[in-house]
Order: sequence, then C-alpha cells, then structure tokens
Amino acid sequence: MTSTMGAVDLTGLTDRMTEFITEEVLPVEREVIVDERPVTDDLRIQLQTAAKRAGVFGPLSAPEYGGLGLTASELVVVMDAAGASLLGPTAVNCSAPDDGNIDLLSHAANPEQRERYLTPLSSGLVRSSIAMTEPAPGAGSDPSMLATTAEKTPTGWIINGAKHFTTGADGAAFFICFADTANGPTMFLVDSDNPGVRVDGRMRTLDRCVTGGHCRVTFVDCVVDDSAVLGEVGTAMLHAQARLAPSRLIFCINWLGLAVRAHHMAGRHINSRHSFGGPIADNGLAQGLIADSEIDIAASRGLIRRAAELIDEQGPAASEARHSATVAKAFVAEAVWRILDRSVQLHGGLGVAEDSLVARFLVESRAFRIYEGPTEVLRWSIARRTLRSLR
Amino acid sequence: MTSTMGAVDLTGLTDRMTEFITEEVLPVEREVIVDERPVTDDLRIQLQTAAKRAGVFGPLSAPEYGGLGLTASELVVVMDAAGASLLGPTAVNCSAPDDGNIDLLSHAANPEQRERYLTPLSSGLVRSSIAMTEPAPGAGSDPSMLATTAEKTPTGWIINGAKHFTTGADGAAFFICFADTANGPTMFLVDSDNPGVRVDGRMRTLDRCVTGGHCRVTFVDCVVDDSAVLGEVGTAMLHAQARLAPSRLIFCINWLGLAVRAHHMAGRHINSRHSFGGPIADNGLAQGLIADSEIDIAASRGLIRRAAELIDEQGPAASEARHSATVAKAFVAEAVWRILDRSVQLHGGLGVAEDSLVARFLVESRAFRIYEGPTEVLRWSIARRTLRSLR
Amino acid sequence: MTSTMGAVDLTGLTDRMTEFITEEVLPVEREVIVDERPVTDDLRIQLQTAAKRAGVFGPLSAPEYGGLGLTASELVVVMDAAGASLLGPTAVNCSAPDDGNIDLLSHAANPEQRERYLTPLSSGLVRSSIAMTEPAPGAGSDPSMLATTAEKTPTGWIINGAKHFTTGADGAAFFICFADTANGPTMFLVDSDNPGVRVDGRMRTLDRCVTGGHCRVTFVDCVVDDSAVLGEVGTAMLHAQARLAPSRLIFCINWLGLAVRAHHMAGRHINSRHSFGGPIADNGLAQGLIADSEIDIAASRGLIRRAAELIDEQGPAASEARHSATVAKAFVAEAVWRILDRSVQLHGGLGVAEDSLVARFLVESRAFRIYEGPTEVLRWSIARRTLRSLR
Amino acid sequence: MTSTMGAVDLTGLTDRMTEFITEEVLPVEREVIVDERPVTDDLRIQLQTAAKRAGVFGPLSAPEYGGLGLTASELVVVMDAAGASLLGPTAVNCSAPDDGNIDLLSHAANPEQRERYLTPLSSGLVRSSIAMTEPAPGAGSDPSMLATTAEKTPTGWIINGAKHFTTGADGAAFFICFADTANGPTMFLVDSDNPGVRVDGRMRTLDRCVTGGHCRVTFVDCVVDDSAVLGEVGTAMLHAQARLAPSRLIFCINWLGLAVRAHHMAGRHINSRHSFGGPIADNGLAQGLIADSEIDIAASRGLIRRAAELIDEQGPAASEARHSATVAKAFVAEAVWRILDRSVQLHGGLGVAEDSLVARFLVESRAFRIYEGPTEVLRWSIARRTLRSLR
Repeated sequence: MTSTMGAVDLTGLTDRMTEFITEEVLPVEREVIVDERPVTDDLRIQLQTAAKRAGVFGPLSAPEYGGLGLTASELVVVMDAAGASLLGPTAVNCSAPDDGNIDLLSHAANPEQRERYLTPLSSGLVRSSIAMTEPAPGAGSDPSMLATTAEKTPTGWIINGAKHFTTGADGAAFFICFADTANGPTMFLVDSDNPGVRVDGRMRTLDRCVTGGHCRVTFVDCVVDDSAVLGEVGTAMLHAQARLAPSRLIFCINWLGLAVRAHHMAGRHINSRHSFGGPIADNGLAQGLIADSEIDIAASRGLIRRAAELIDEQGPAASEARHSATVAKAFVAEAVWRILDRSVQLHGGLGVAEDSLVARFLVESRAFRIYEGPTEVLRWSIARRTLRSLR
Repeated sequence: MTSTMGAVDLTGLTDRMTEFITEEVLPVEREVIVDERPVTDDLRIQLQTAAKRAGVFGPLSAPEYGGLGLTASELVVVMDAAGASLLGPTAVNCSAPDDGNIDLLSHAANPEQRERYLTPLSSGLVRSSIAMTEPAPGAGSDPSMLATTAEKTPTGWIINGAKHFTTGADGAAFFICFADTANGPTMFLVDSDNPGVRVDGRMRTLDRCVTGGHCRVTFVDCVVDDSAVLGEVGTAMLHAQARLAPSRLIFCINWLGLAVRAHHMAGRHINSRHSFGGPIADNGLAQGLIADSEIDIAASRGLIRRAAELIDEQGPAASEARHSATVAKAFVAEAVWRILDRSVQLHGGLGVAEDSLVARFLVESRAFRIYEGPTEVLRWSIARRTLRSLR
Repeated sequence: MTSTMGAVDLTGLTDRMTEFITEEVLPVEREVIVDERPVTDDLRIQLQTAAKRAGVFGPLSAPEYGGLGLTASELVVVMDAAGASLLGPTAVNCSAPDDGNIDLLSHAANPEQRERYLTPLSSGLVRSSIAMTEPAPGAGSDPSMLATTAEKTPTGWIINGAKHFTTGADGAAFFICFADTANGPTMFLVDSDNPGVRVDGRMRTLDRCVTGGHCRVTFVDCVVDDSAVLGEVGTAMLHAQARLAPSRLIFCINWLGLAVRAHHMAGRHINSRHSFGGPIADNGLAQGLIADSEIDIAASRGLIRRAAELIDEQGPAASEARHSATVAKAFVAEAVWRILDRSVQLHGGLGVAEDSLVARFLVESRAFRIYEGPTEVLRWSIARRTLRSLR
Repeated sequence: MTSTMGAVDLTGLTDRMTEFITEEVLPVEREVIVDERPVTDDLRIQLQTAAKRAGVFGPLSAPEYGGLGLTASELVVVMDAAGASLLGPTAVNCSAPDDGNIDLLSHAANPEQRERYLTPLSSGLVRSSIAMTEPAPGAGSDPSMLATTAEKTPTGWIINGAKHFTTGADGAAFFICFADTANGPTMFLVDSDNPGVRVDGRMRTLDRCVTGGHCRVTFVDCVVDDSAVLGEVGTAMLHAQARLAPSRLIFCINWLGLAVRAHHMAGRHINSRHSFGGPIADNGLAQGLIADSEIDIAASRGLIRRAAELIDEQGPAASEARHSATVAKAFVAEAVWRILDRSVQLHGGLGVAEDSLVARFLVESRAFRIYEGPTEVLRWSIARRTLRSLR
C-alpha cells in the first residue's frame, strides 16, 4: 500500500487515537462487558461519530472516502493504539470483515461498484459481510471445497448455497458472496434486500463483540446480474488470497493491542496486591509470567512490522508478503492467547470474574486462533512453502 | 479413607454411572449449554433424584447417609465416569464445595453438628457453602491474611467480615465461615437464615454451571454460640489443609472426566470431516494434537491415582498425601486446559460455537487453574518442599 | 512377566542397589566423565563383579541364570535406584541392548539357543547386539523397509546387508540380525566370529557410555544354518514388537533415574549458592524450574508404573500394554530431557562444564528421544490408535 | 553505532560473505567436527587471512583498523551469513570475547591504549580475553559480588583474585580484568606476559570451538600501573553494561545464523528421505517442526533487527536499547536451542551422530542460554523493568 496522506504525523495521530480510546471507547467497552450492553449498530454509529470528531476515523479508507489512507506500516502504529479496546477497531472502522472488504473493493471493484459499495462502506454509512465459509462438506479452511454455486442464465446469475460464520451478516448492507461457476469460483456483490438471501440467525460464538455477529446465511435462487460480479468471473480465489495478507495483519495488530493492555492491567494489579508477605510483583513466578508476555509482545511486534513492510513494498498478493503475514498470524494469534491467559492468571480469582475485563478478553480472543486460518493450517502452509524451497 | 462398602463392585457401579450420565445428565447439560437453562436447585434436585434411582448417588457420602462411601481410589474410577458431564458431579452430589464440606464435617463435626449439618448435606437435602476467600487485602491464596473476625462475648461469638468467591452461597442452607479469633483462625457453622449473614449477589465468573454461583457474602455482627464452632477454636487452618487434598483430588477427577469426553468428541469430529483431500484425521498436525491429549490424559491419571492411594493409605492430612495432591492439581489443571483447548482447535470454527459444547467446556474450565490454588502458588509450594528436603 | 523370586524383599533390594550405586558405581562414573576413562568391557566386568557381590546383579535375568527375575513392576522400583548413574544399568546387566535381548531370547529361543546364548548373556559372561537399523533407504523407524536379505540355500542361509546404529556391536559375542526372507522378516543368531560379519567401526554419537558403542556392521555372504533362526521364519516383526514394550519401559526407568539424580544435584546446588542478595533457591524463577521437574518426575513415574503393570498383567505383546509403553516413552523421553536441561540451567555456567556431570548427562540423554522410536513417530502411532478407536 | 563505510554495498558484502563461508570455512568446520581438528590460533589465522583476501574481515572493526565498520543494523545482515558456520564469526574476527572487547576499547580506551591494544586486536594480530566471571562466592550473574581486588600502592596497582570461564584466555595477548578498588569496580588492561597472571587451564565445557577456550585464570600480586586502567577508576560496571547490548546482539546474530543453516539441512534431509510410504517431508508432525522453526527464525530476526536499530539510534548504553537486546537474547537463545533441537530430531538417528554436524551444533549452542546472562536472569530483569514502568 502507498500512503495517501503525504507526510503523516503518525505520532500526533497515535496520540489522538490513544486519547480517543481512553475517553470515548473504554467507558462504552465497560458497559458492554460489565452491563452486557449489546454491540448494536447504534452503538457502532455512536462510536464512529466520535471517532470522526476526533480525527481518527478510517485508518484504512482512502482520504477521498473520508479516511486516513494509511499504509500497512502506518496502520501498525496507529491501530496498536486502537486495538487497546475490544471496540476500538469497530469505532474507527477498521475491524473484520469491513477492513478486508474495503481493501478487496479498492482492488477489485469497477467504478460503479466503488461508488455503490466502497463509498458508503468506507465512510461507515453501512456495514458489509463476506459470505465464504460453508457448513461441512463445504468450504472451510480448504477453499477448494466451495459448494455454493452460481449458474449463468439469460436473465442473470442464480446463486444457491448455505454459508455460516458469515461475520457481520446481521444488519449488513451487502454481501460479497463466493460461489462456484462453470468458469471457477467467483465473487458476487449481493444486496441484503435481495429476496434470494436470508440471514438465518446468529451463531452463539465465544466472541460476542462483533457488530452483526457470525451468522448462518442462505442463498436460495438468489438472482443477480452481471454488474454484481466483483473482479472477473473465476478470479475469486486470487482475490481472496490477496485479501488475506492485509486482513490477517490487521487482525494481528488489533488483538495485540488488546493483549498489551491486558498485560499492563496485570502488571498494575500485581504491583498493588500483597500475598505471602510482600507485593505479588516481587514473586519470581509472577515475574516470569510478566517477562514471557513482554517477550511475546516484542516478538509479535517484529513479525507484524515485517509483514507490513513487505505488504507495502511488494503488494499484498506477493508471495513473500503473504508468507510473512501467515507467519505473523501463526505466531501472534498464539502469543495473544498466551498473554491474555497469563493476564487472567496474574489476576488470581478476579481474573475469571468478568468485571475485571481480562476474563472476557480471553474468551473473545479464542476464535482468533481459528478465524482467517487455524494455526495448524497456517503452520502446514508455512512448512510446505519452506520445504519446497529446500528441494 | 477406608472404603465402607466392603467389596465394592466398581465395574458395575462405573457402568451404571456411565449409563446414568449418558441417559439422564447429558440431555440436561445440552439444555443448559445450548438453551441457556439456568443451573438452579430444581435442576439439581431433578438430577439427584435420578441419580438415587440409578444407584449412583453420593460417592463420597457414608452409607449411613445414603451414600456409596467410596475410598479415594474408588472415587477415581467412578467419578471419572461422572465427570464426563459438566453437571455429572452435581448430579451425584460430589461437586465443590459440598464434596469438601462433607469430608470436612465427617472429620471435624461433633455428633450434634453431624446430625444437623452432615446428614441433610450428604443426602442432598441441602447445599452448603464455605466462606473463606476474601476481597483484598484479605485472605486469598495466602490464608494467613484472614481479615474476618469473630469476637467472643458473653452472649456468643460475633462475626464480622466480607467474603467473595463464596461458592454455592446463593441457596445454601449453611456456611462454614473462616474467622480469626483471639486464639487463631476458627471455623463457624452459620445458618443462612442467621440475620447477620447476607448474600450480596453472584459474581459473573467464567464458570456458570455451579449451583448457587460464586457470591459476595457479608457477615455483619453475625451472632452464633459455641455450638457453632466446627472443630476447635484455633484449628481452622489445620482443617482447611486436611480438606485440601481430597478437594483438589476430586476437582482433578471431575475435570479430567470432562476433558476426556471433549477429546473423544474431537477425535470423532476429525474422523468424520474432510479437508484438503482427505479426512482431517489423516493430517499429521491434527494427529499431533490428539496424541498430546492422549499423553496428557494418561499422565493425569497416573498422578490422580497416586494421590488417591496416598490419601487412602496415610490420610488426607499426611504430608506426602497432600504433596501428591498438590502435584496432581498443578499438572492436571494445566493438562485439562490444554486438552480442552486442543479439542476446540480440532473442531475448527465450530469449536468456538457454543452449540458444539466444547467451547463452553473450555470457558467453564478456566477457573480450575486458579480455584483451590493457582498453578503458580502450587508450583511455588512444590518447589519449597523439594528444596527443603535437599538442604 | 511373573516374578520368579517369590516374595521379593523389594525395599531391601532397593536399599542394596542404592548403596551399590553410591559406593561402587559413582566413583567409576566420575572417572568416565571427568577423566575420560573409556567404557570398555574390562570396566563393565569390574562393575558387574561388584554387582554380583552386592547381590544386585541381573534384575531382568531369571534366577536359574544368576539373576533376580523381577517382574516389570518390581523393576520399576529397583532400576529407579540403578538408573541414578549413567553406568548403573550396565553394572547390573540391565542396559540396552542386552536387556531387550535377554527378554527376546527368553520368549523366542529354543532350548539349545537358550543354552548357547541366553545363559552366558544373562550371567554377564558375554554381551550381545541387535542388528536391525539400516542406512537409508533401509529400515529405520519404519521396519517394513528392511533391506538386508537372507537367502535359503541347500547349504544354509546366506545373509547380505548393511546395518548401522548397531548398539554394542564392538565386542559383542553374537548378533540378532534382522533379515528379509522369501517368507518374511526373520531373526538370525550370528556369532561374531562368523567370517561373514564385519564390524566397520563405531559411530561418533552423542551418547558415549554404551559398552560396545553404536556401530556400522556389514553382513557379506554370511552363512548360517537353520539352527540360527530365532523364533520361526517370518516372525521377526512380531517378536520385535513384543520386545519393544519392555525395552522402552526399561529405557524410561533407567533415564528417569538419572534425571532424578540430576534434579537433586540442581536443588542442592541452588540451596548452597547465593546471588542478588540471597540463596538462588529463594528465587521464584529457579523455584519454577524445580517445581516443573518435580511434576515431570511424578508424572513420569505414574506412566512407567502403569505400563509395567499392564506388561505384567497382559504380557508385553498385548495391545494395551504396548500402547501404555509407547505413551510412557513419548512422555518420559521428553520429560527426562526437560529435567536434565533444567538441571544444567540451574547450575549456571557450571552446568555446561563437564566436571559438574550434568552437562554430560544432558548430552548422553539426547538420543533417548530418538532411539526405540522418535517421539514424533510414537505420537503418530498413539494418535492413529486413538482415532481408530473413535471411528 | 554510526556506519563508517558510507553507502555500504550490503548485498554485495553479504554475497561475498556467503561465498567465503561456503568455500573457505565450511570445509574447515567439517575437519573440526568430523576429524576433531582442534581450533587453534593457527587455524584462526588461516581463516582470517582468507577472510581478508575475500574482503569480509572485521565487520565490527573500524576501517582505519582494516575493518568494515558496520553499524549494528548492517551487522545483522552480514553476520547472519557468517554465523552459518560455527567458525564463521571467528574467521571474520567477530566472535566473543573479541567482538565485545573491540567495542569496549573503542568507547573506553585512551589514545595510547587504542594504539597498543585496539589496533592489533582489530586487525586479528592478537586475541584478547575478558576476566570477569569468578568462582563462587564471586561474581557470576550478579556482578556486585566481585571478589577480585586491586589495591592502589605507591608503585602501582596490585591485583589479586581468581577468575573462571575466562573466554579465550589461552593464547590471548591481554586481559581486561575486572577488579574492585577502594573507589569501586575498575577495568585493568593486563598483558598476558605479566608475571602476576596465570592461566590455570581450560575448562571442559560443552562448547569446544572457541579459540583459547574457557579458562581458569588467577591474578596473584599482579602489578600494573595507572596506564592500565581502562576507562576511569570505578566505572567498570557502566562500561560492562554498555558492552552488554552489542555483545548480546552479536551473540544472537551468530547463533541464529547457525540455527538457520541447521534448519535448512533438516528440511533438505526430510525432503530426501522416505518412511512409511512417502517422503518424511509429507508427514504432518515433521512439517510441524519445520513450521515452528520457520516461525522462531522470523520472530528472532524481528527482535534482533529492533535491538540493532535502537543500538544504532540511541547508543548501546541507552536503557531502551539495552532492554531490547535483553529481550532479544532471552528469546533468541531459547529459539536457537529449539531450532537446533528440532533439526537433530528431524535427522532421526543421524541427528545424534556427530558426522551429521547438527549434533555438534546442538551441544555447542547449549551454553548460549547461559553465557552473557542465563535466560532466567534476563527474564527477571525484563519483568522488573516492566513492573517498574507500571507502578
């Protein structure tokens, strides 16, 4: 990505972001976790309005769409601050799946599609959803198992198929639907008021702070015309691959931000509590947990930074850029989990009480090790690429 | 412990237990997890009535109280089957804190106290609670920080103090309250209708299947007379220590049972699903997770069995028995967590959807690594004992 | 295995073993490690003579051969003491490959073969070797790749093939050679003075305390007659499998004994050293290492004990017995490595100086994670068995 | 550090380095490992002469001393290639303790000392040694326990004390000796022909490829005059701290280079070997090891790069630069160990045979987790710094 901001004042922006998160987002996060306030579109709009006011809205969106147009390397710095809250990425319009969809539309959409879909999405007017994952025996980690079909007919394309884990579907303005055609997997832009698409309800997943939830979605004789084809017929997998690196990267940045905050909360907690005759912070086993998290954070940052640089330098579809994002996701997802887990443990009993926040952070983060590629699938992919290069 | 059953038909009993869990408990567990049916006393009584009918009620209670009176080693076998469900231990009246309280009352109560408290508790007529843990700066992992006091006056003892994480408090018939006296920490039996005790509400913890929850409880000028003293004045810590080994052991058995079930669910899942051209079960990285869980289970069983034998042979207060239970808890709590985590991971996306059960198992189990001694505190204790012996 | 000692005085025997190791073996071990005294047959005979005098020789050998004839469960207790020294197992004639070969001959040899091979081997008069592993592309972890052949001719069998990692070959009186025949893999007893067998030299492996080393051995037109067939033609793999469980078990017991000793050395070391204002033993991070080793030891013992019981109850060829020995080996080999590594680390700089012994223990133990099945191969086997049972 | 090369052609230099290592160093490394050729000064001079010819000598030395004068960030790139061989750092004059001593002398020496010590050291004419670590109860991880003393007298300083683990002492031209004075710890330059210094012999440590070994050194009434004071009296600990960051960084770079090579060897090995019906490279458990090493390498590189940048930007004594080098060392030392261990494991039996090289790499690397700060001491230091910042 090329920065469109000219000489961005990154430090100023990051400071504003931190202030925004602290002042505007954390109080709402507390309501969501402690008072069980649901994460609705109203809440999202409240936060995004505040973000615009604070000048921190749209890190990923181009300036012509009211965004900041940051490069991947700049995102690393700014979103690290935004990720400190579970709701930070949503508040600045840089959370899944919209982040990846903005990126995808920027690359693949034609001018009319950009006007109709990218413009409102970038400005936070609407949300979107990507309908890709399917119940068994359809496409999961293995995209080649795509079972949803789109048949070309004289009057348009007819899409049929079932999806699940369709993130953000409830309330989305449109779907990017992956369907197999006679010429291979293809992406279709489907408006949510199309009578052929049906949101069958949210799945009860461990992560509950996603606007629009993770849903079951069915396409039944869903008719769209040629203008709905995103990119070209048969190119869905190429685009999906190119979407993957930035989307994994932003996932890593956001979650690492949360892990860092939890780590600091844990450190402050043990600084303030006493046990067995001294501050818990003086206990070597507690210190070991703190050190391991500090090391995990530093290692995560190095990997994230490298992936961002390669995406900026080579583009998100380049083999090395994708590999580096895969390596980053494989490490960071596990590291975030370890850091949050240690933060819970350092809080003792309070760590499993939701009022202390870290308990919920841990639970919300569990899916990160599975979404956008389970760690085992990533490791498998990393190994095969490495072994190929050593033949 | 000495078995009071004579020649127990352990195999028959275990088979009955497995059948009971499968037929009576698992359907209710599904309602609790999938339909969010709350774990009330009505639900508990429904399950315990069925357990009595099935002849599996009261593994820990003496036969004169309608129980099975099993030794620790026998419990290992039978409760492994009961633990397969989150609600199994509750269904057979062998879950925290009642299991430990039955044990404690069996050792420390005088005849009148046995009649009044142990009898109804053993038969499932009532539930109990142990009021020990206090908010900072009171007693947590370090029992010497006990802040609740009991003052001896001409008209009785007056207890004052705040507790939290008081398991099962909501709906309990009585509390075993730990309070400091002029002669040292002492246990008091306090009826829940005593006007000086107040349950201030449940804490929202990650584990939600505990009847009566984890509560905040306050003792305000709570008056009891001498007959409320359990054991003798000043002996609370000795009794607490003796309670610890069996209570940790049963915790381990119960949770390991659940982990084994999740492991088997994961194995069956990957046997039935395909990805990348074959069953997931043929993938080496998935096989690695299965093998590691199998090894964790076998190692956990060996440690549990050894602790049970030592408790049976030497009594629960013996130093070696306590050490073995500490070692078992330190390993098993972490192993259970790893096994459940791998089971989630092997389910892929479905692993984080609560309908698949394993997601909830993971969340419910998190506190096991903290309750009854955080792993770090246990490791610290193990190290100091080892190092002392090597001086 | 059935104990042939009647009521063994295990405690007395173990005490004698500990005394023998302390008095007779440890001084020699120090010469071997510190002064680089080579582990020759003279050294072995010196130690074995002392062992006979002390009444601790031959734990595995039947009494009629001058041994103790212990069951697997008894071996666990006694060899735990012997394993405390790198040279302990050799000193009592219970080290690889002779331990497994004694077991194999006990089951598979005919009376003449027992007389000729088992008798002198059991009494320590001679050593033996098992010629199984081959250089690529021959048999390694996968025994089905056996490349050595034995052709039946009118004048006898003619064996041709190359072996390596042939443990104990240098100085062995005879080989048990695995070779493929028209009727399947078969074991042959080959005297070392047979002109068709050639020991091509020792491999420089990390473990250097094995009498006779790990050698390259070549069979060139090596002629033996029918009386050399051990078991029956085509049964080599069955016998190899039955040999595996006891051989893995004894490997685990011996190495765990060494790890326990190193752990105790490390504990004593940090009890006696000061740093940063106090004994290292008071540092929480050091305590964490001690606790983790203590837990690893307890878990290893539970797994070893279970495998021994199943071998005693069901025989070494039973599926469950073999599985339990595989699980034990997979855990214990890794645990021993961790324990020894922590012991090195706790010694600080001295830990990597060979005079402190633990450095050498670590290096010697590395192969244990590979010999008799690399951990990954064991895990793979464990997973497949588990997954089969869940279909 | 500021690069003194102007626009360095890093790519060209790195390519030359790789060619030099491959052509000149690897054959010698094989002689050292397989044929047990000792690492003498003759061998060192042979390699360094070749390095000068190849234009890769002295990455750390200033150009006026015949070196390349690279910044820390440039070193990262170039020494990654040099580290591929155990002897690479020695060959280019960038191995402990000379690397750190060059750095130390560059900062602390006065013009005469630079002329007398830095000039010949930088050009490889002589080797040096740093006499810091002492036997208990002297200075080890805790430098405040310094027991060696230097007494100021009318005729000069008189140094007395015992050192061990004095790297490179055997054959060194001079020592930088740490000794306590009335005004605090002070560094003294002591020529090795000073009659008051005595090298008592090499310690037999696991790492054997260090020219000059790790020695016991004694200072007995060793007389030096004021011109021998390096830096100022009482400043030894400040200088030692400033030396630590670059010295840890170079340690990390060098060892990571070796780990990467072993990882590639392992990948090529399993690409070429078959087992259980296919290439080992197709086995998921082997792939998992490859992926984990690939991730460890990427994470290590990120941490090393960050530390190098901070050292370049802020200087090696800056708190953040030192912290980043500590974090890097804590992670990289453990990662290198894991990578080498996996490489051994992937080689199967051959992995523990020294001819395959990886066995020796593993053994040589063990001390890296202890030298320049055991991982536990580093973690402790990281934790305390983190916790201080969260008060």
